[in-house]
Order: sequence, then structure tokens, then C-alpha cells
Amino acid sequence: MTTAYDCLQHDQHDPLASLREQFALPADVIYLDGNSLGAQPKAAAKRAMQVIEQEWGTDLIRSWNSAGWFDLPSRLGDLLAPLIGANPAEVVITDSTSINLFKALAAALQLQAQQHPQKKVIVSERSNFPTDLYIIEGITQWLQRGYELRLVDSVSELSIAVDQDVAAVVLTQVNYRSGELLDMAATTALAHAHDALIIWDLSHSAGAVPVDLNGARADYAIGCCYKYLNGGPGAPAFIWVAPRHLADFQHPLSGWWGHTSPFAMQSGFIPTPSIRRALCGTQPIISLALIEIGLATFKSTDMTAVRKKSLHLTDLFIELVEQNCSTHGLELITPRAHAKRGSHVSFLHPHAYSIIQALIRRGIIGDYREPSVMRFGFTPLYTSYMDVWNAADALRDILDNNSYEINTPRYTVT
Amino acid sequence: MTTAYDCLQHDQHDPLASLREQFALPADVIYLDGNSLGAQPKAAAKRAMQVIEQEWGTDLIRSWNSAGWFDLPSRLGDLLAPLIGANPAEVVITDSTSINLFKALAAALQLQAQQHPQKKVIVSERSNFPTDLYIIEGITQWLQRGYELRLVDSVSELSIAVDQDVAAVVLTQVNYRSGELLDMAATTALAHAHDALIIWDLSHSAGAVPVDLNGARADYAIGCCYKYLNGGPGAPAFIWVAPRHLADFQHPLSGWWGHTSPFAMQSGFIPTPSIRRALCGTQPIISLALIEIGLATFKSTDMTAVRKKSLHLTDLFIELVEQNCSTHGLELITPRAHAKRGSHVSFLHPHAYSIIQALIRRGIIGDYREPSVMRFGFTPLYTSYMDVWNAADALRDILDNNSYEINTPRYTVT
Repeated sequence: MTTAYDCLQHDQHDPLASLREQFALPADVIYLDGNSLGAQPKAAAKRAMQVIEQEWGTDLIRSWNSAGWFDLPSRLGDLLAPLIGANPAEVVITDSTSINLFKALAAALQLQAQQHPQKKVIVSERSNFPTDLYIIEGITQWLQRGYELRLVDSVSELSIAVDQDVAAVVLTQVNYRSGELLDMAATTALAHAHDALIIWDLSHSAGAVPVDLNGARADYAIGCCYKYLNGGPGAPAFIWVAPRHLADFQHPLSGWWGHTSPFAMQSGFIPTPSIRRALCGTQPIISLALIEIGLATFKSTDMTAVRKKSLHLTDLFIELVEQNCSTHGLELITPRAHAKRGSHVSFLHPHAYSIIQALIRRGIIGDYREPSVMRFGFTPLYTSYMDVWNAADALRDILDNNSYEINTPRYTVT
Repeated sequence: MTTAYDCLQHDQHDPLASLREQFALPADVIYLDGNSLGAQPKAAAKRAMQVIEQEWGTDLIRSWNSAGWFDLPSRLGDLLAPLIGANPAEVVITDSTSINLFKALAAALQLQAQQHPQKKVIVSERSNFPTDLYIIEGITQWLQRGYELRLVDSVSELSIAVDQDVAAVVLTQVNYRSGELLDMAATTALAHAHDALIIWDLSHSAGAVPVDLNGARADYAIGCCYKYLNGGPGAPAFIWVAPRHLADFQHPLSGWWGHTSPFAMQSGFIPTPSIRRALCGTQPIISLALIEIGLATFKSTDMTAVRKKSLHLTDLFIELVEQNCSTHGLELITPRAHAKRGSHVSFLHPHAYSIIQALIRRGIIGDYREPSVMRFGFTPLYTSYMDVWNAADALRDILDNNSYEINTPRYTVT
């Protein structure tokens, strides 16, 4: 039985403990929602001032060159690359996750149409983050070439669902609701065994779990920079293309930033040979520049250490909640096996929304997801073991005393 | 013959003169590139600090509701609407101009495919900003439904080029090179006379010339917020859809922000009835929020006053350059007729690039555009008549004394 004193001891021996100092977390908040919006690195404000006052205000248009604005998508991509098992010049940061999925799926379908034109099925998971499914739907309905979306109810069905008809598989590595972590290498191998291409959405895994895109021989990856990567609210997203597919990477969002000579103002679109062919139009520089600050929060650690603490935090939370709240009908939907768990933990409860609201009133910020899911994100860079203790204890107190009002759900963005 | 004293007098009687105080322009710069990147409003830094430190840092995930982050695209769209002749709830600010053109053209082609399936031609101008042409190319190549791009060499050819085969016309209202301003009402009427839909790119006209989208009965419009609207480098762009087309506005970038119930996490994409169906994924909040500051720079004036000063500034610059530099082989490519002129003035010269570089070394920031174009933007909110005098005088001095080096072009983003 773990005690508060044990948690204090864990914090005292935590090699990542000092990293919390990088973040501007309010003193009265225990923030368990870094999987939705990463906390603010203290250095972000200063960097924003530099971009606004010096680069924009003083240097003006010259900053496209002098401050490297135009190169930001690739320079930031190079900084991100080691966190996801990619090499420099394989990733760019640009646009939104949804739009990057659109590009990747468009390119994958175009490649398959050349190589395996009979393949007409796209496989995904029914519980994938809905926007991924909406984008697949948008592409297939628009192409009108007989593409069909095949949804599995559980990833255990993938081995049957992925067959010779499948052109592309679109999966999120860590499920946004359950926190289930998929085996990227095995699932990629399954897709490849049937000549299917696979697109990984890393929104809930980049910066949370070790990712090895090249090691797994993944085909494409996209993901979000404002969750575990701490890039700021709505920060632009990333897109990675396996080098072997780069020459064939073509998508209909062929804007000038992806052109081989963007400033020559040529007629006729010729995609640049590099990963910058995944770019489209001009990028929001201030939001983009702050991603560098978010990525810098990983500088003095590595994903092995982050993962080790993440599993310890989530193990501890599961243990404490089960120890404290066993009579209250909570149902754990996050896998217990380490190999299948991301960095958040979710429980079902009929009054999940009201309980989360009660926690938030106490300064403990978790997240409600439809339907009936209480979701708690653990960010090793700034979550302490005492945070876990206090959150679990507050949850116990709220449940023991029925101190939540059963009110109508209001939704929050996550 | 206009004198420096005349210019001083114009400044003293300029009803917009005090607006310059809103901007953080460096003292040693004459900035004639606001048509590429609008100057920094002084209030931008404070607003950015508020978003970063209070909304992101302290309020964290709660700001999606409490700070109205989720509503920003429509709230900012409502603020922009009066500058472009739109009504509230008709425009959103989101993504990039290129991506918004993709959405508008996709929706237009889908609508035409239902109503006039035989129409397979898209008309644009050969000298349109290249990314607009690249996006048209991307869509048509990808759809593989026999669409054809018909480019006119001059807008005078539009009356012949727009015929019964034309599905859509894509035009930029103010040409990025020449500064030529098109008659939106007449050109829209021409398109409609042939049952073609028209998409207006307002990147170089929003905030520069009066625009009346509803008055002209335009169909769709897109444009940039970081030029005359002063929204900050790479700020997200806008998209407007005529209310009569809104119910049919469907595009393949069907992300969750355009869903009728984005937080219910439903399977199956159902577009929201409102203009928010033009949204796709999560937006870069810090860059987006600063657009409000840019739009606020128009608060104490109106587009009639802005236009009056704009024409006076561009008239004056043309007059002074022609008066001072008549022997140096400059060729004006901007129309002299007020009705055909936007808010920038362009001259051709064989050494245009080197001359622009020489001006920049003197703190006079104009712009070079391929091939051989010197481009000077006049922003009535912060350009003074003495700026015009000094710029024309410096140009004269550089040309008279051959004080520019003939060097190899380096490109800048504009």
C-alpha cells in the first residue's frame, strides 16, 4: 500500500524533478491535462516578445530571411525528429494535424493507385479521434473512386481487417480516450504484409512514449505539437514521410511553400524534392516559433527517462485510485500492461463529467471525454508523484462524500 | 511640380496622420512593404503576453472556453466583415490563404458538378499569384475529371475567356505585381452571365481598397490577414462564402472544427450549418489572437478615408518618380486610372533587384518581384506623404549616381 510519504520519496529521487521549474504552472493547480494542452514553458513569453518586437516590429519583412522564418518548418522538424525516431530533413512542422493527415492519405492513395489500383479499402479504428475519420471520409467521398472505410471495434481485429484489399491503414498510436498504446512495429509489419501503407497519428504519443518511425518502417506520420510537446495552444502540427516514399509524395494542397522554387513565381507546380513538399501556404510564425521553446523542454532528458517516469506515474495513479475508490464503480479502460499503455489513464463512471468538474473546482485539472470517461494525463516533465497522490486523494474524497453535482455536460476542447 | 514642403503640408492636414502612432515602426525605416507584411501594432506585444501568460500559462485548457479560443475564427471573422462588405457570421479566419482557396474551389466545383456537370473550365489570370494557380492545378489533377485551366494574359481577355464551359473563375482583385485593381461587380456579373462561380482572392485588397462582396454578389472570397490587415507574420487567413451558397458549401478538408457537434465525438462527418463548416483542424491560437489587434488599427477610420489617402499617396509617388527619374528607363506597370489601381505601385527596371537592395540599405523598404519589378506598398494607416517624398528622392539619388551594385538576385518572401 503506497503512502503519501512514499510519493514524497519518489519525488525526492526523481531525476526529472527539476524539469518542472521550466514551466509556469499555477501554484494552486495540479495539471493532469498535458495530453490535451501542454503547460506553458516559462521561456515562451520571452521568445514571443523577441519575435513580435524585434523580428516583426523592427526587422519587418527582412525577417523572412534574417530570422529564418521561411526555414522554420524544417528547422523545427529537425529538432523534433529525434523524439519520434526520425532523421533530420524527414519532418516539417506546418498546418494542422487534420490537414497533414489529408496530405498523407492523399499521397498514400495516389501511390497505391499506381501500384495496386485494385486496393480500395482504408482501415481505421472506430474509436480513433473523430477528426481522423472525418478526414478519411472527406477524401474518399470526394475522390468518388470506390474507396471504402473499414472500421475495427478493437485493434485486436486488425489482423483480420487488414487484408489484400487494403490500400491504407490510419491509426492513432495512443488512443485519445483509453490511452491504449499500439505496437507500431508489429502493426506496420501487418500492414506491409498485405502491401498496405500505414499512416500513424502520433498526437498522443510524441513526447509521451518512445517512438521509432524509421525502426518500425512506418510509411507516414502526423501529429500535434501542443500536447506533450508543449508548443502552445493550437501550435502547428508535424508531418513525416519515410524517405523511400518522398519522391512519390504528392498531394493536392500544392501551395507555393512546397514548390521547388517558391520565389521564382513560376507557372506550373513542381514539388521540391525535400520534405518541404509537404508544405502548402504561409505559416503562422508566432505560434510556429514557440514550438522551439516547447521542444527545448526535452533538452536535458531523453524519451527513455520520460517513459520510465510516465509508467511509474500511471502505475501509481491506477494503484491509488483502485486502492482508494474501489467501492465507487470506476472502471479502468486503460490497459494495465506497460507495453499497451500511453501516458494517460482513463476511468469510466456514470457521473464522469460532474466528477471532473468537481476536481477542477479543487484545482485538479483532468479531462472529460464523451461518453462517461474521466481522463488524466501524466506529463513526466512536470507531473510529480505528490500530484498523483493529491489527485487520487481528491477523487476519493469527492466520491466518498458524493460532493459533485450531477449537472448537464458542457464540452471542452481536448 | 510637387515639393517637399507640399508633402509636409499634406501630412499636417492628413486626417489619418495620428494612426501611425499605433505602430511600432523603427525610426530609421521608411516602410513601403505593408502589402507584404503589415507593420507591428504596438498593442500586439501586450496581447501576446496576455494570451501566453494568462490564457495559456494560468488558465490552461480552460481557455478554450473561458478565453473564447474556440470561437476566435468566427469572432475575428465578424470583426473583419465590415472591411470587405460582408455581414457578421459570413466569414471565418482560419488556416492559410492557399488552403482556403482549396476549400472554396472544391466547394464551387462540387456545386457546379451538380448543377452544370458539363462545365469543366477554370479561368484565372496567368499573372495571378502563383500559389493560387498551383492550388487550382492540385485540385484539377487530383480530381481527374477532365477539368482544364484557362489562363488569360490580361484581364481584358476575360470577356472572351469566360464562356459557357466555365465552372469557376479564380481572380485576385489586386494583382500582386502590377497593383492592378479589378472591378469586382462587373467581373462577377460577367462570370454569372455564363453561370460560372467566382472566387475572389482579396490578399492585396482587404484593408487597402473598399471591398463590397455582398454588393458585388460575389460567390466566395479568401485572403490574407498579414498584409494590410496587420495581423502579424503568417497570420491565419480568411474565407467568406455567400450566404446563398452556404448550405452547399462542402469541401474535403472535413475536420472536426467544421462538424456540427465537434465535442460530441460522433462518427460520421456532419458539417455545421454555419460558416464554421469552412474550418478544419485546431487553429494556432497565439497567431490567431493577434489578428484582433491588427483589425483594431482600423477602428478610428473607415475604408473610404483609407482609399482616399491611398490614391493620394500612390498618385504622389508616381508623380515624383516620373518627375525625378524620367531619364532612367523606369516603366510604370501600375494603372494610372484610379479605378484600376490598388494600394501599391510597381516599376520595371533591368536592375530592379539591385536598386531595391540599395534602397533597403538606406532604410527604405520596398520589394523586388520576379522579374525586374520594384514594388512599393502604401499603407494609409502609417505611410506619410514625407515618406513618399523621401523614398522617391532616394530612388532618384541612387539612379542618378548609379549607386547600386549589380548583384545576383536573392529572393525574399512577400
